[in-house]
Amino acid sequence: MPDCETRPDLAAIRQAAERIAGLVQRTPLMRSRSLDQMFSGELHFKCEHLQRVGAFKARGAANAVFSLSAEELGKGVATHSSGNHGAAVALAAGTKDAQAWVVMPDDAPAAKKRAVESYGANIVDCKPGLANREAALQELVDKKGVHVIHPYNDYRVIAGQGTVALEIIEQQEDIDLLMVPVGGGGLLSGSLLAIKELRPEIQVIGIEPERADDARQSLDSGERVIIDSPDTIADGLRASLGDKTFPIIAELVDDIVTVSEDAIIEATRLVWERMKQLIEPSAAVPVAALLERRIELKGRRAAVVFTGGNLDLDWLPWQRDF
Amino acid sequence: MPDCETRPDLAAIRQAAERIAGLVQRTPLMRSRSLDQMFSGELHFKCEHLQRVGAFKARGAANAVFSLSAEELGKGVATHSSGNHGAAVALAAGTKDAQAWVVMPDDAPAAKKRAVESYGANIVDCKPGLANREAALQELVDKKGVHVIHPYNDYRVIAGQGTVALEIIEQQEDIDLLMVPVGGGGLLSGSLLAIKELRPEIQVIGIEPERADDARQSLDSGERVIIDSPDTIADGLRASLGDKTFPIIAELVDDIVTVSEDAIIEATRLVWERMKQLIEPSAAVPVAALLERRIELKGRRAAVVFTGGNLDLDWLPWQRDF
Repeated sequence: MPDCETRPDLAAIRQAAERIAGLVQRTPLMRSRSLDQMFSGELHFKCEHLQRVGAFKARGAANAVFSLSAEELGKGVATHSSGNHGAAVALAAGTKDAQAWVVMPDDAPAAKKRAVESYGANIVDCKPGLANREAALQELVDKKGVHVIHPYNDYRVIAGQGTVALEIIEQQEDIDLLMVPVGGGGLLSGSLLAIKELRPEIQVIGIEPERADDARQSLDSGERVIIDSPDTIADGLRASLGDKTFPIIAELVDDIVTVSEDAIIEATRLVWERMKQLIEPSAAVPVAALLERRIELKGRRAAVVFTGGNLDLDWLPWQRDF
Repeated sequence: MPDCETRPDLAAIRQAAERIAGLVQRTPLMRSRSLDQMFSGELHFKCEHLQRVGAFKARGAANAVFSLSAEELGKGVATHSSGNHGAAVALAAGTKDAQAWVVMPDDAPAAKKRAVESYGANIVDCKPGLANREAALQELVDKKGVHVIHPYNDYRVIAGQGTVALEIIEQQEDIDLLMVPVGGGGLLSGSLLAIKELRPEIQVIGIEPERADDARQSLDSGERVIIDSPDTIADGLRASLGDKTFPIIAELVDDIVTVSEDAIIEATRLVWERMKQLIEPSAAVPVAALLERRIELKGRRAAVVFTGGNLDLDWLPWQRDF
């Protein structure tokens, strides 16, 4: 069983890759002639929107669940993420015949509830609001002894997400830049731990919405800043860094840049139109940074993580009145 | 120069593949765990929505343009297709430094005009209606001596489209079924000529909208039926078979099945949601046929051609009042 108390190193991330190999997809790197031309460089898109559950979150959740003992699995796992992590925990638990509980506010979209249920998890309804969700989760812990899997502030989850960067290097070893969206920082911190030990010369930049710029603020102030319920269309990036992800990012990241809501929407649409890939707005922030010239690609070879592809198809980003 | 007057055989389709190799992409075959489960078989999706210009039409247009003599190229090429074929002819001509004219009705969407212009073609405006478009095209022929490239009723175009089937067999040789959308029949006839010489035991089924069922009617009556301006959301399948495509299909196809508008919309959305691939409604008709049980997949291994991914992102199929 991996150590939950120690920051994962490259070896731990390699172990995670082996542990989760039976569940997760080795997603392709995709190119785009028109985006390369537009930004005068070479872009390699890591297609985690084609990952199980439609997001890279399958990796971290699987590594955490598969690290549990038989006794722990017997009591079940739980989370209160209503997004991609909830489905990821449900999927991973299901493959181990373990019970999973996902706490969801009773105003959550029916489609999200169906998705979680389709992986065999139990939905626990609660009133909206973080306090209510945490209370409902604590009740599960107290009553059933379930093991809680945090969506990002967990070293096993971080190690699992780091396998994205490992695969990118295996698939295209000569990149000089890696661009990663930042919400709670699980993917960015895991990627940094892998890349900076394996190929420290590769620049790693995190990108977040201006309206959810806790990582930028945290780096500037040197202390972890928390933004409560930021209003951004990139719903996967609304979380703030955790006390495990922040120190890793503060130590290792090359830069954090921010992007406007307009650029996120434009970038999402650009990828849909030119690449025919259905990514969610959170996945489009690196392309938004190129559009806004917050990152200069000219002459460089970059990898970009398309983090997920789950969104409401009745109400597209460019059809909302923001 | 290939023979324009003789039905292409497997050798001609292989020559076409060589001729167009520098321009077209070898698109991937994609799998979907959830669609396989849903239909109890094995589906391999040929991703021509990732082809140049976002559709398989790049192949036939390139084969036709690249077959022209220097003298013919010097006079330029023309078409009156405002859809994917127009962009395909423009792209192919541009790579040979030949002029291209695309006749478009003056009420055509600005986005379509921009796409054709972006490949360097000249737009020739005309009043809406087929008669006006044909008159404008004839004027170009009379005045400039341009070479007209028909979107499907041309053996060089048919041979080019047949390269899709060649690639499928190279990528997944053990399929037992090929499912192809039918509009004017260029892709289906080209695929039949390749498959029935190379692997005659593979069943080939064409799929068309119920509202544009000219191929089904033509097979039933034994004579080519033309449906004028059928009203279907699958805008790429509104054309009727031509006098070159109909005899090939009548002789070689295993079956033609039809699908409802509701099933086309449901299938498009299913592919977007489960596969995260942005296909146009015309490309979704094979999946619609599976949804409506017009084709039974159970236990079989099938290839499906995702023919294109160009559609209006401001007005999605499920947002229209049909």
